[in-house]
Amino acid sequence: MASRDGYSWTKADGLRPGVPCIGAIQPPSNIASSSSSPSTEFDVIVVGAGYAGLTAARDASVAGLKVLLLEARDRIGGRSWSSNIDGYPYEMGGTWVYWGQATVWREIARYGMQDELESSYDFSRGINKFLLASTGGTQSFTHEEEDALMQSGLAKLFNVDGKDGRDALPMPHSAHLSPSDRRFDGMSVADRLAEMGGQLTPTERLCLEGFVLLCSGATLATTSFYEMLHWWALSGYTYEGCVNHLVRFKFRAGQSSFAVRFLGEALASGNLSYAFSEPVAAVRDGGAQGSVTVTTRSGRTFAAKRVISALPLNVLDTVAFEPPLQEGKAAAARTGHVNQTVKVHAEIRERELRSFTGVSYPHNGLIYGFGDGETPAGNTHVVAFGGQHKHFHPEDDIDRTIAEFHGFTPMNVERLVSAIRNYKLCRRGGRLIADRRGQVFHNWSRDEFAKGAWFFPAPGLLASHFEDLRARQGNIFFASSDWASGWRSFIDGAIEEGTRAAASVRADLIGRSKI
Amino acid sequence: MASRDGYSWTKADGLRPGVPCIGAIQPPSNIASSSSSPSTEFDVIVVGAGYAGLTAARDASVAGLKVLLLEARDRIGGRSWSSNIDGYPYEMGGTWVYWGQATVWREIARYGMQDELESSYDFSRGINKFLLASTGGTQSFTHEEEDALMQSGLAKLFNVDGKDGRDALPMPHSAHLSPSDRRFDGMSVADRLAEMGGQLTPTERLCLEGFVLLCSGATLATTSFYEMLHWWALSGYTYEGCVNHLVRFKFRAGQSSFAVRFLGEALASGNLSYAFSEPVAAVRDGGAQGSVTVTTRSGRTFAAKRVISALPLNVLDTVAFEPPLQEGKAAAARTGHVNQTVKVHAEIRERELRSFTGVSYPHNGLIYGFGDGETPAGNTHVVAFGGQHKHFHPEDDIDRTIAEFHGFTPMNVERLVSAIRNYKLCRRGGRLIADRRGQVFHNWSRDEFAKGAWFFPAPGLLASHFEDLRARQGNIFFASSDWASGWRSFIDGAIEEGTRAAASVRADLIGRSKI
Repeated sequence: MASRDGYSWTKADGLRPGVPCIGAIQPPSNIASSSSSPSTEFDVIVVGAGYAGLTAARDASVAGLKVLLLEARDRIGGRSWSSNIDGYPYEMGGTWVYWGQATVWREIARYGMQDELESSYDFSRGINKFLLASTGGTQSFTHEEEDALMQSGLAKLFNVDGKDGRDALPMPHSAHLSPSDRRFDGMSVADRLAEMGGQLTPTERLCLEGFVLLCSGATLATTSFYEMLHWWALSGYTYEGCVNHLVRFKFRAGQSSFAVRFLGEALASGNLSYAFSEPVAAVRDGGAQGSVTVTTRSGRTFAAKRVISALPLNVLDTVAFEPPLQEGKAAAARTGHVNQTVKVHAEIRERELRSFTGVSYPHNGLIYGFGDGETPAGNTHVVAFGGQHKHFHPEDDIDRTIAEFHGFTPMNVERLVSAIRNYKLCRRGGRLIADRRGQVFHNWSRDEFAKGAWFFPAPGLLASHFEDLRARQGNIFFASSDWASGWRSFIDGAIEEGTRAAASVRADLIGRSKI
Repeated sequence: MASRDGYSWTKADGLRPGVPCIGAIQPPSNIASSSSSPSTEFDVIVVGAGYAGLTAARDASVAGLKVLLLEARDRIGGRSWSSNIDGYPYEMGGTWVYWGQATVWREIARYGMQDELESSYDFSRGINKFLLASTGGTQSFTHEEEDALMQSGLAKLFNVDGKDGRDALPMPHSAHLSPSDRRFDGMSVADRLAEMGGQLTPTERLCLEGFVLLCSGATLATTSFYEMLHWWALSGYTYEGCVNHLVRFKFRAGQSSFAVRFLGEALASGNLSYAFSEPVAAVRDGGAQGSVTVTTRSGRTFAAKRVISALPLNVLDTVAFEPPLQEGKAAAARTGHVNQTVKVHAEIRERELRSFTGVSYPHNGLIYGFGDGETPAGNTHVVAFGGQHKHFHPEDDIDRTIAEFHGFTPMNVERLVSAIRNYKLCRRGGRLIADRRGQVFHNWSRDEFAKGAWFFPAPGLLASHFEDLRARQGNIFFASSDWASGWRSFIDGAIEEGTRAAASVRADLIGRSKI
């Protein structure tokens, strides 16, 4: 099956619409149009089929609740999905998982998939170098030197307590922000760098800033220092921990091979109704005595005792809630998060670059890249990331995008894969290619159902609204990785939140004390 | 409520039977004796209410299956439970949890208990020293020096690959043993120490051996080197990781405050029947067409479509299975595991010892101890561990047990708490005290429902039988932390296994492909 999301470009075929995706669901709905009458009341309607919504729908349906899952796209997974092209999975969004991430690992073990992972890195052959490209030229390091540079730079960044951050943020899974957390959330990474003075060597600083921008997809001035410290604490206060938790292990068969397990289990319960390609327009809460009605853009209306909104922060205000969102939540939705990551995959000819890692900064649009696999054709798969710093839209100008890859080191690009949607194509000389004339192609930033990549807050957002975002409102529960207490922004956080929402709804409906 | 398990001794009252435990369940059963007719068929009978059985019973009952939970003891938790004495929880068995342990942390987050943990350590005041007591006297170190000694010793022990074990065991959550794993499982830690020659300083060696024996509760010769390497890999290949994962964070209100959540949720489903103080005598599998019948020692018989045995390895052969256990499983049960940890708590007067940690080795019966909390009376709570090395039974000779604590440093012991059962008491001079005449008091080693502490294998057991232990047999599934793929021996592993068993039974009964 193919999803409308995504596009791929090859030298031979140019830009093509849609990509194969095992997460694209057929048939798009298992409910008859007659069941759109509000008289059909579900126990719970889940809005959004990313991992938060999938988990909530699965847990609720397995526990015997009648569930309706509504999804705007034609596929599951939200901001995490893979496309299998010629049998090789390209990860369009959230990719990596680790056994130190509790809720996602619990699911991997439960589905018996713990032996279906592989390391993105393979340092066994090829150039085996870390390339640090900057305005003054490119320096080359061993990976051991890379680790030491990153470790020393990051430890200095987070050493606000003489313990590399261990005392400053000892319990990173707390559901509450401490006064110290709030203070650090008032600072940006740029503020912290200014406070540090001349502690960093120029090389450490380049590495460090490249790594921070990889994490936040923002700029140094719009990256909350608290949130970076939170990632560091979650990762065990070491760079080795960061690598393991953030960018190392992925599913051999792609993220969507994992997501389909959740949907499959929910369907097997016999309690799940669903409709894809049904963006939600409005959610009306009837209050204590009434039910909640959900209206889609196509005009269908459904009713349920409870609703779980699994919408990301940046699109929360595209749905009309009635009564309106509580002020704290509404303010957070207006502010949004700042991550506008650009993620692009390239299939390149150079086999020796399988073992390269690189930072290209501050002049390049793609800042962080590395060899991520070997394609069936025996080529190297490179993944690279940019963000708000020198932001660009990779589909607007294919030549520029290829040049961004050359910003790490020269390479021969055979194929580009990136996540977009709502693309428009034009034909030139009989070939389907990108329309370069403007706002035509849509990537994560332009995606109307995401409006950004994984959650990353600018200073102040969490200190002001973290608990607002986590709060229920009447009969509506809000589940998103964007406000998970632990691995916020990660697949793990999405599952944490979906789990929490389903448990809360169930406790509510069975009329017993909250489990 | 009180459990028959456990005893406490104070200067004032001597030895007293039973201890308060919020995990002791009243009423002991929610089924009428009439329902003991085999005509009442359950979907699944779960044998054992430790965390594996609790999780299996909860997941199955929440998913709509009719479940019967049978437990030999009067309380839940198996080898993990806490006793609240004067409002202070003493942990009789499994204690520590961590967010790097996926399945247990998922449950902690799901029950919203992530802010109910505290660190066992408090190095903010008092002597703040690591005391290394050996035959030549006692050396004193800062905790930073302790960490450095442990890190260097352990890194040398596990450095079989030039990467401190990272290449030797890269995927510690695999459900399969690799050829390299099998080779290391053929070695004991004693073998590995012999292979290392003179790499360790005498001080490193004392620290290292004390730590290994804390982990295994065995001797160096009966401790599988592979299993120690597995703990090290699970902990992220650092001593800091070991401390965080193994001995740092505990529930402020005690382990049993966590276990009761599982039972409470299962009961709220309306699908859970249970009977405590009902040891199981026999399990007969009727095969493809029949059901499984379970007979208790009291002569009651129950029938179900499936059975989940959540019995620990060391008592698996106390139940008569028909047909008999498959040969690999039976052989493993005959062999058993070797952990005979002695765990004793002392309430002592010295407040300054709150921040002590200590190893007393090789001459002492209690090898590893540290300040674990402050009691309501303002005294220090010390926990200490021994095992097969210089094994002793703490209830046999209270004076000796107190002397074992003095093996770390002099202290005034006001109270001792330890886990025993089937104790017999005698009165001397009108006071209830220990009968010191022999095999009278029962601790974990003497406990007929455990026959040991957490799982730890001698060389060869896992290489020969790991996959045998994990295999189902007809309509019977076997769930125990003792053969979890990840955090084997831990609460986390028990939950992993209970989760796996319930999912397998459910997939079996709903007649669809395994989720």
